[in-house]
Amino acid sequence: MRELAGSPGTWSGLSLRVGQLVFAAASVCATASALGFAAYTAFCYLIASMGLQALWSLGLACLDCYALKFKKDLQSAVLVSLFVVGDWVTAILSFAAACSAAGVVVLFDRDIYACRRDPQLPCGRFELATACAFLSWAFSATSALVMFWLLASL
Amino acid sequence: MRELAGSPGTWSGLSLRVGQLVFAAASVCATASALGFAAYTAFCYLIASMGLQALWSLGLACLDCYALKFKKDLQSAVLVSLFVVGDWVTAILSFAAACSAAGVVVLFDRDIYACRRDPQLPCGRFELATACAFLSWAFSATSALVMFWLLASL
Repeated sequence: MRELAGSPGTWSGLSLRVGQLVFAAASVCATASALGFAAYTAFCYLIASMGLQALWSLGLACLDCYALKFKKDLQSAVLVSLFVVGDWVTAILSFAAACSAAGVVVLFDRDIYACRRDPQLPCGRFELATACAFLSWAFSATSALVMFWLLASL
Repeated sequence: MRELAGSPGTWSGLSLRVGQLVFAAASVCATASALGFAAYTAFCYLIASMGLQALWSLGLACLDCYALKFKKDLQSAVLVSLFVVGDWVTAILSFAAACSAAGVVVLFDRDIYACRRDPQLPCGRFELATACAFLSWAFSATSALVMFWLLASL
């Protein structure tokens, strides 16, 4: 089988996982450090979804390290099917969380001017968390596409 | 080549397109009939994205009708690549629009109680528009996955 960039058990696959993990963790930290985030459903959902993304990416990164160290092949049909399902679920949840948080941030910032009227509202942290969530999703979507392509060509 | 349900130029493909078109048009109508929607970026984006989705689906539905009537084969690599790009772009834009609108609707309804405090706010129509957008996206995502699978197995 030809080697596809981003496949499980390769250096490119591992770097995608590390990217997802770092940005998801950054998004969780930025949201959790924003005072009063729990009053907004969109940011609670963002934390839950980014937490799940970080856990999934951490697990897969460990698996990639193991495969690289012991030169194991992770590209069997059963394993790739499992990765496809997990990657697609986490990627879709991450994108939904990032978009709903972005909707709320834009509403606060441009539509109802809540950021200007209420200086207590941590708009900067919400924006940072949303940006990190989109970056994490970009890496996650790349992994998901690579996995789907792999599964279709197995 | 094996026949995949939802492929271009088949009855199942045409029904997916009709589903996308109907729900996208319903979402545009529900948003446009909601008084004051233009004050909210998320709903302006929802209208733009659902409009694009409706136009794309209408075009593809016409192409499917043509292929069914004259028994043409639409499954060449060039055409399927074009469908994949178009379907993925419209599906991602629709999902982003639906999620950001959902984020704002949930904020209005549950977090800041704007629907209860301001009876002028057309929350019902916003909810209807968001639900239709998600349904349109569900059909669109199905088409996009089928196209990607087709392209990968060509």
